Amino acid sequence: MIKRKKTKKIRIGTVEIGGNATVSVQSMCNTDTRDTTATIKQVKQLEDAGCEIVRLAVPDSEAAEAIKKIKSNVVVPIVADIHFDYRLAIQAIQNDVDGLRLNPGNISNIDNIKKVVKLAKKEDIPIRIGINSGSLEKDLSHRKEDLADSLVESALRQVKIFEDLDFNLIKLSLKSSDTLTMINAYQQISNIVDYPLHLGVTEAGTLKTGLIKSSIGIGSLLLQGIGDTIRISLTDNPVEEVKAGWEILKALNLRQRGINFISCPTCGRCQIDLINLAQKVEDSLKNISTPITVAVMGCPVNGPGEAKTADIGIAGGINEGYIFKKGEIIAKVPEEDLLEVFMKEINILLNQQ
Amino acid sequence: MIKRKKTKKIRIGTVEIGGNATVSVQSMCNTDTRDTTATIKQVKQLEDAGCEIVRLAVPDSEAAEAIKKIKSNVVVPIVADIHFDYRLAIQAIQNDVDGLRLNPGNISNIDNIKKVVKLAKKEDIPIRIGINSGSLEKDLSHRKEDLADSLVESALRQVKIFEDLDFNLIKLSLKSSDTLTMINAYQQISNIVDYPLHLGVTEAGTLKTGLIKSSIGIGSLLLQGIGDTIRISLTDNPVEEVKAGWEILKALNLRQRGINFISCPTCGRCQIDLINLAQKVEDSLKNISTPITVAVMGCPVNGPGEAKTADIGIAGGINEGYIFKKGEIIAKVPEEDLLEVFMKEINILLNQQ
Repeated sequence: MIKRKKTKKIRIGTVEIGGNATVSVQSMCNTDTRDTTATIKQVKQLEDAGCEIVRLAVPDSEAAEAIKKIKSNVVVPIVADIHFDYRLAIQAIQNDVDGLRLNPGNISNIDNIKKVVKLAKKEDIPIRIGINSGSLEKDLSHRKEDLADSLVESALRQVKIFEDLDFNLIKLSLKSSDTLTMINAYQQISNIVDYPLHLGVTEAGTLKTGLIKSSIGIGSLLLQGIGDTIRISLTDNPVEEVKAGWEILKALNLRQRGINFISCPTCGRCQIDLINLAQKVEDSLKNISTPITVAVMGCPVNGPGEAKTADIGIAGGINEGYIFKKGEIIAKVPEEDLLEVFMKEINILLNQQ
Repeated sequence: MIKRKKTKKIRIGTVEIGGNATVSVQSMCNTDTRDTTATIKQVKQLEDAGCEIVRLAVPDSEAAEAIKKIKSNVVVPIVADIHFDYRLAIQAIQNDVDGLRLNPGNISNIDNIKKVVKLAKKEDIPIRIGINSGSLEKDLSHRKEDLADSLVESALRQVKIFEDLDFNLIKLSLKSSDTLTMINAYQQISNIVDYPLHLGVTEAGTLKTGLIKSSIGIGSLLLQGIGDTIRISLTDNPVEEVKAGWEILKALNLRQRGINFISCPTCGRCQIDLINLAQKVEDSLKNISTPITVAVMGCPVNGPGEAKTADIGIAGGINEGYIFKKGEIIAKVPEEDLLEVFMKEINILLNQQ
């Protein structure tokens, strides 16, 4: 069991982050925020996939204005991503946003920072300080020292600006596209502050590489009890980010949602078309949110063992398969009927939950 | 930097495992070993992807016999996966196999185990003891205690059988389909023995889920310095296992091979078709083994920062992109020409290496 480090609790809309709150799954729309139809549609897709906080880019006043319409059409809390212009932050809060991502150091004038902080305090809107290896301050990005140290120093500078204004509704992220750098930076900052941490490997790449870098970076930090909310960054449909976030939390037994899918890699022993069967079963179950364990196993070596501990499982034989349910064989089925019979049994199981 | 735990060194053919050897990438064919044409073809595909040890299922005498022909047609060392029948182990060694995966506890008669050990010693053939949560001994699989403890106890029993016969060309794996169990088991065994460890999450599932579970399990252990060779278990083409293995090692800076690909998740700021561009660039580079860092970034917020530190990078603008090479802007290109110009520059870079 993972012992989580306790951090201060903040609240983005209805979602608690830090304290004893469960680790939440975030994503970001890649639509143009000003296109409210496309953005609302994508936010709803993210909600359906289990996304608990959605971030939107707010590059201009029209995008800040669009938040009001988007908010009134969706359930999930919305965070506005803002750079440089304090007026967009003010406008986003006025348009019902639930949280901001904003680095005060990006806003040159301290009086303008004060205006944002004053309104955020009044409306109880938390702000994430998002440090990113690609956009460090010049004096830090040019240092020859360890990049992780620079990420930490940059974060502490930004924190100090807020703390000096007596503002502590803060969440922090220290992202790098380098997995080891990101792990190192979060470990350090976690020892220094007790603000909740938003974990992510930034610019992690396309689907497969991105899943690998993010799973190592976010997964190993969560294993150490570090991290309160996560965002998997993928150059792909953001729905994939949400699915991946849940899979990471499920693998670490931090949250449960939908199918825990166990299937073997197939080998020279496998006598049924397992890859095809496993993909079809998994695909048929992708919209189920009830937590059940399903095992699809090719052969009699490890098959029965895994299939027995799963809620429901198949162990393949020669041109046929055995279906297990809660440890008991309930059917021996020819290969051509396996998918149909197995799916029927899974549906019976789901209806009993 | 990761400080690796030092283990005893063994040698599978030309590949060293343990000691100061680099972490090697393994996979397993899912062809029928007796079908030597299909198996040789798949072994070569795995070799091309960077696989350093290939395992073959050896369920019968015909499969053991096939090893000779397969071995004479491939370069990569071959391991025979054997259960229950000691004669298959003898036959595999006589047919030039480089290593065995065999649990002596599966062979009921101690005299038969002795025959295998005697020949393995004479021919200098290491044996992996492969403990798997799906095939534990009955008295262990029925225990109510932590499954990780049972995996460790099972491994130690098998180790004792070999040690009592004065055989120590041993490698160990303690796989579970549950990520936390697997991490816990390897952490424990690593503190007890100094045999090299083969890491894997077993039956990890189909591609995406399998990548996530394996990256967390294997990645977090490697981060702790545990593990000498890895196999990613996926219900998919085994070539994907090899690619994933390399991505894990690259993310942890333990090995270098091919492209380190950085690309941003796209957001409402992105004004070019980045997902498409990133996938095309990555796809065009998939067979490159020269280690270079390529960044494909959507917007001017983090884009230039990442693109500057990469060997070559794009930062997208409005319907155009800037190409960076070693920190310098070398071209400003309209979106429709970006892929072509960028690939041309990458090829120039690769030819200079």
